[in-house]
Amino acid sequence: MHRDLFDEDHEAFRAVVRDVVAKEVVPHYADWEKAGRMPRELFEKLGSLGLLGMAIPERYGGAGSGDYRYNVVLQEEAARALVTLGTVRTQLEVVLPYFLAYADEQQRERWFTGLAAGTLLTAIAMTEPGTGSDLAGIRTAAVRDGDHYVLNGAKTFITGGLLADLVIVVARTSSDAGNRRAGLTLLVVEDGMPGFTRGRVLDKLGIKAQDTVELSFEDVRVPVANRLGEEGAAFEYLTSNLPQERMTVAVGAVAQARSALNSTIEYVKERKAFGAPVASFQNTKFELAAVAAEIEAAQAMLDRAVLELVGRRLSGADAAKVKLFCTEMQARAVDRCLQLFGGYGYVTEHPIARLYADARVTRIYAGTSEVMKVIISRSLGL
Amino acid sequence: MHRDLFDEDHEAFRAVVRDVVAKEVVPHYADWEKAGRMPRELFEKLGSLGLLGMAIPERYGGAGSGDYRYNVVLQEEAARALVTLGTVRTQLEVVLPYFLAYADEQQRERWFTGLAAGTLLTAIAMTEPGTGSDLAGIRTAAVRDGDHYVLNGAKTFITGGLLADLVIVVARTSSDAGNRRAGLTLLVVEDGMPGFTRGRVLDKLGIKAQDTVELSFEDVRVPVANRLGEEGAAFEYLTSNLPQERMTVAVGAVAQARSALNSTIEYVKERKAFGAPVASFQNTKFELAAVAAEIEAAQAMLDRAVLELVGRRLSGADAAKVKLFCTEMQARAVDRCLQLFGGYGYVTEHPIARLYADARVTRIYAGTSEVMKVIISRSLGL
Amino acid sequence: MHRDLFDEDHEAFRAVVRDVVAKEVVPHYADWEKAGRMPRELFEKLGSLGLLGMAIPERYGGAGSGDYRYNVVLQEEAARALVTLGTVRTQLEVVLPYFLAYADEQQRERWFTGLAAGTLLTAIAMTEPGTGSDLAGIRTAAVRDGDHYVLNGAKTFITGGLLADLVIVVARTSSDAGNRRAGLTLLVVEDGMPGFTRGRVLDKLGIKAQDTVELSFEDVRVPVANRLGEEGAAFEYLTSNLPQERMTVAVGAVAQARSALNSTIEYVKERKAFGAPVASFQNTKFELAAVAAEIEAAQAMLDRAVLELVGRRLSGADAAKVKLFCTEMQARAVDRCLQLFGGYGYVTEHPIARLYADARVTRIYAGTSEVMKVIISRSLGL
Amino acid sequence: MHRDLFDEDHEAFRAVVRDVVAKEVVPHYADWEKAGRMPRELFEKLGSLGLLGMAIPERYGGAGSGDYRYNVVLQEEAARALVTLGTVRTQLEVVLPYFLAYADEQQRERWFTGLAAGTLLTAIAMTEPGTGSDLAGIRTAAVRDGDHYVLNGAKTFITGGLLADLVIVVARTSSDAGNRRAGLTLLVVEDGMPGFTRGRVLDKLGIKAQDTVELSFEDVRVPVANRLGEEGAAFEYLTSNLPQERMTVAVGAVAQARSALNSTIEYVKERKAFGAPVASFQNTKFELAAVAAEIEAAQAMLDRAVLELVGRRLSGADAAKVKLFCTEMQARAVDRCLQLFGGYGYVTEHPIARLYADARVTRIYAGTSEVMKVIISRSLGL
Repeated sequence: MHRDLFDEDHEAFRAVVRDVVAKEVVPHYADWEKAGRMPRELFEKLGSLGLLGMAIPERYGGAGSGDYRYNVVLQEEAARALVTLGTVRTQLEVVLPYFLAYADEQQRERWFTGLAAGTLLTAIAMTEPGTGSDLAGIRTAAVRDGDHYVLNGAKTFITGGLLADLVIVVARTSSDAGNRRAGLTLLVVEDGMPGFTRGRVLDKLGIKAQDTVELSFEDVRVPVANRLGEEGAAFEYLTSNLPQERMTVAVGAVAQARSALNSTIEYVKERKAFGAPVASFQNTKFELAAVAAEIEAAQAMLDRAVLELVGRRLSGADAAKVKLFCTEMQARAVDRCLQLFGGYGYVTEHPIARLYADARVTRIYAGTSEVMKVIISRSLGL
Repeated sequence: MHRDLFDEDHEAFRAVVRDVVAKEVVPHYADWEKAGRMPRELFEKLGSLGLLGMAIPERYGGAGSGDYRYNVVLQEEAARALVTLGTVRTQLEVVLPYFLAYADEQQRERWFTGLAAGTLLTAIAMTEPGTGSDLAGIRTAAVRDGDHYVLNGAKTFITGGLLADLVIVVARTSSDAGNRRAGLTLLVVEDGMPGFTRGRVLDKLGIKAQDTVELSFEDVRVPVANRLGEEGAAFEYLTSNLPQERMTVAVGAVAQARSALNSTIEYVKERKAFGAPVASFQNTKFELAAVAAEIEAAQAMLDRAVLELVGRRLSGADAAKVKLFCTEMQARAVDRCLQLFGGYGYVTEHPIARLYADARVTRIYAGTSEVMKVIISRSLGL
Repeated sequence: MHRDLFDEDHEAFRAVVRDVVAKEVVPHYADWEKAGRMPRELFEKLGSLGLLGMAIPERYGGAGSGDYRYNVVLQEEAARALVTLGTVRTQLEVVLPYFLAYADEQQRERWFTGLAAGTLLTAIAMTEPGTGSDLAGIRTAAVRDGDHYVLNGAKTFITGGLLADLVIVVARTSSDAGNRRAGLTLLVVEDGMPGFTRGRVLDKLGIKAQDTVELSFEDVRVPVANRLGEEGAAFEYLTSNLPQERMTVAVGAVAQARSALNSTIEYVKERKAFGAPVASFQNTKFELAAVAAEIEAAQAMLDRAVLELVGRRLSGADAAKVKLFCTEMQARAVDRCLQLFGGYGYVTEHPIARLYADARVTRIYAGTSEVMKVIISRSLGL
Repeated sequence: MHRDLFDEDHEAFRAVVRDVVAKEVVPHYADWEKAGRMPRELFEKLGSLGLLGMAIPERYGGAGSGDYRYNVVLQEEAARALVTLGTVRTQLEVVLPYFLAYADEQQRERWFTGLAAGTLLTAIAMTEPGTGSDLAGIRTAAVRDGDHYVLNGAKTFITGGLLADLVIVVARTSSDAGNRRAGLTLLVVEDGMPGFTRGRVLDKLGIKAQDTVELSFEDVRVPVANRLGEEGAAFEYLTSNLPQERMTVAVGAVAQARSALNSTIEYVKERKAFGAPVASFQNTKFELAAVAAEIEAAQAMLDRAVLELVGRRLSGADAAKVKLFCTEMQARAVDRCLQLFGGYGYVTEHPIARLYADARVTRIYAGTSEVMKVIISRSLGL
């Protein structure tokens, strides 16, 4: 069905992205997977083409458009080429919004040009080894000492943490037994600050082209000038940005499910089994028809939510519904697709195996399906 | 999320429908279920309020608007009140389009005023005992004899057949072994024509307020003036109207799933088990959250398709995706909701039991889920 | 696969049951469904053939064998003939065990001959309007007054309550705020006792040949001689009998799922669609193959549990696993089977529609799937 | 529930296996996963302990017992320790039966001592790049030339192919257009035979400790003395051994699902989220209860089938039902378990991630779920 989402500007952007993905991503992707990270050069390349600065004000080299649909296009084009842009996506859709919303004038001067140019890489550090998605349980602590905060703690599951020049760290600056949500603050830790070290790179089931690391902070002196926004306001900042972070997972989930479907259709048409094309079996037809219907539903739901997000009307509960449905759908869809490849689906040289392994994380990160259900049920008055 | 479907006129219409459902349908619904049919008076009442003539030209007493969204409103309001409008819906959404599209001037004069007024009740007879949904296998035959066709055959699963004044019968007027789809014609059989008899009323699992009957035709002489459209063109007519017929099932499926969800939310809040409200159990919250997310997806998909239908762009494959997904969703949703009622869910005095029994048919009629998959898979090139 | 469950005696019993089901049940079943109950004559007939007394001592006219496998055979043969024995099954598998285990000498003399002969019909009344499956929440109260208990309260969802001559009522004889499970007692209320009235017969989605009624007790004077077992011991009695009650539901679930499969195989072989037998479509084959595999798993699990039950080793958690899996399997299986009938599956004259409606209750009664999960999770140490 | 499968001998064997797995497998497993293979030394160690020769006649150093239950114990103990024995299992359960059944006297003399001792490693080569599981489509050809066959062709997906000293190759020795199943022969190709080369080692989603390779045969001269069984009889041999091969996958599937459940129970008890143990959430309890019930069903089905196999009565259709159900169950179970680990479930250092990746192949190899359904549906007369 017709998607009423994009205009000419988006389509022009799409053409650029499609080209750069084909030339700068696809040929190197297997190497990045082996290396477990995307290289700094990729960011510089994308920056030079203006792809990282769509939302950054023009005076810092950006395009000044906060239109979320450019992010949608980026993910769709990556998925179309059977790759993901992992750390790029995280920078643009998860980290950048915090800089855009809360950076003060000096911070903008210091960082925005680099962010737009792709010379400053970023990460955001929320999760801690003992707390998972429970923001209120954060124990990394920052104690004010004159013009600095002294930061101590450990973070884990940090996407892009390996190369990040700037890491937004969620730290506790005060504690209030009665209100565990109060007292959280965002501090920007810079590469090279004494006491800031990167720990193990986690070996994951999938999404292997992006690094996921542990970070450690031992008496790191972070200038107060590196504080993003107000002291104690981080919980509110985080919860107001989470709907978009969840949308970004849903956007990827739908795009990758569609990509899985398309690859599978191609495969079953050419592949023979028992003397006939796999596509000729009724089971094949019915499985793919069911997958196609589910993708169509997810796409419609997602597109409606994107328009809500663009119009700044998307509620947390609606974002949760979208993430829940789209990622659960992706899991079902990719599993069914893989099955039609038979043994070849289990061999990583075929992208379907990668899509399968990648898909398993989307029901987990940015809030698990269970957390989504908690949020939704609250909105139902339960 | 915001539905971009309705304008003020639709909402005004909604208010009228809500009122008439509350006053004219709800109080009698249990009786109609017992009787196995909706009464002629209901049609007359709806007709007098202008609800049956939205799509009929003004000169025949209608409102002259072919906007499908009025039908959506009608079904939504019925579902909201935990009833369905069975035969009314069939008349408006399944049968009427054939009259509107193919009736000639004389036929319009003869029938349209009655259709708008609710004094002429209708049905359409496609399915035959031996053929199911396979239009090409139709064996009811009409042989031309001067100004008449002589009609012989039997039909079954005819919604509204019991009271219908006009029955559109799909009959074979010629046969061509090489093209089983050719040679089908629509004939309007009128109540009282000699040889036209109504057979058994089928006892169904659900949708008990609407009658489903067998019809029999023995040497019925149907005037050529009662032929709807061209001789031999029925297959084409039918396939071009099926997308809307499928949409109508999907509209009901989503509206009833939503209604099930809302009733269940109400119930679990007031009902206690093991000393606590059922709503307080995490399982209850999670089940209903998952249902809510699925309904949201189905609604977005459906609304997008409604706009396509209104814009006359809806493809058969897209209608099939919508029917497949929305009815499968309804089945899952209503089953999960019923479970939360415990034993009360199994007792028919609670509407959830009725919603459950009603839901089982939507994956079957207007083309089974399997037929939908055949249609979708063709569109995927399989 | 070979079932290692039955010996020659069971097979001889099976032959008798098969015969009596064919002659005494099948011809009348539709009438019983219409009437909403099984007649007293059926019990007398079964009693005269010795089918009701297998577990009753020989001196009262029974066979003196407590072997649960005779009950299995009874349900399997009913399902094989596409009927259920509803109230008979409840009498034999749910109610009788209480009489057998807890009746004293005088009670045995008064009742056992009638139970074996089928002249005394029974029911057990646990559930109350406000409490559902929560035994600890029972509010029906019996106050000792000399040689009597004075009983007040209301019960609902009572299978066989309409004709029961003896109703075992679970009543609270003392209350202890600290231990809600203490103070429950079993009292046998007899037909005709002043103050004992039968209320509404509930109209259910399925299992229509068995009555489910409300019972009311208003100052009913029940002789102490009608107390079954010790005062205050009912909670223990009930929980020790529940595993068998759950097994009985599972036995029926598997037998009926198998019956659904067999009917469907027969149907799809003879029925044509689109010019070919429905059995010839790969989707049909695959659906039924998946159903057959699930039934085989459930059967193996069930048979293992039956042997455990016979050996008096079956734990409550294992019974819960069996009920949970077998009834969920039944739901999936019967739904998939019905779908292959198309429109005919929705018409009650075809037994598949009845099997579908009947199946919905098994995930609810004798403890819902949710209650089963609670029990299982405790056994996992959660 | 009680498993009636094992006697004292099996339990004694189990103790030995448990010990050797703990000492010889677990400490090295991560290395093997990295290397992509199990080392020759493992086979020698297992051989020296008598674990490889249970089924080999005593005169060749075996124990002379063809009891399949020893294989069950081996897999269960591996799974219990959260590892798999990949190539060992293939040697014992898939390849060895062919040697035992079809080796002539000379072949027994040449190979059996080495097989029992673990100094001769084996593989079987059926699948070809273009044919998948379709034995009838095999194109690798062997042409008789005096005392030799000249073998040409390519095979893929060969487990253990990397180190195999003996490879049983399924080759076409004659072709008959009317009967594609005729003309297949088993030839034992030995390491070092000119023209026999090993191709790429396939990188798989999971089961990383076992190698899966491509093999190529170019004018390999295989002595007629290396033919296993009769010329042209391989199709029959293969189909009569496939039920056991399928059982072996099912045995692993159930054992690994159980292992996943046990690890998860442990994890959720110790892990906290939102201030409470994950085990304390109702969703956790219900998910694990449902998984436990499914495993119990699968185990009962499997054990029944093992007894049938031991008694040489297991039909191909029953083996297919067991493989279908047990592997589909495994997929559902492991997925649900992983989810409860949150982000930690996606990191390969936690065994649950490995169990998840390993599980995906069981619905595919040794015949896909689709092939199982074909076999089952034939047995239903469809």
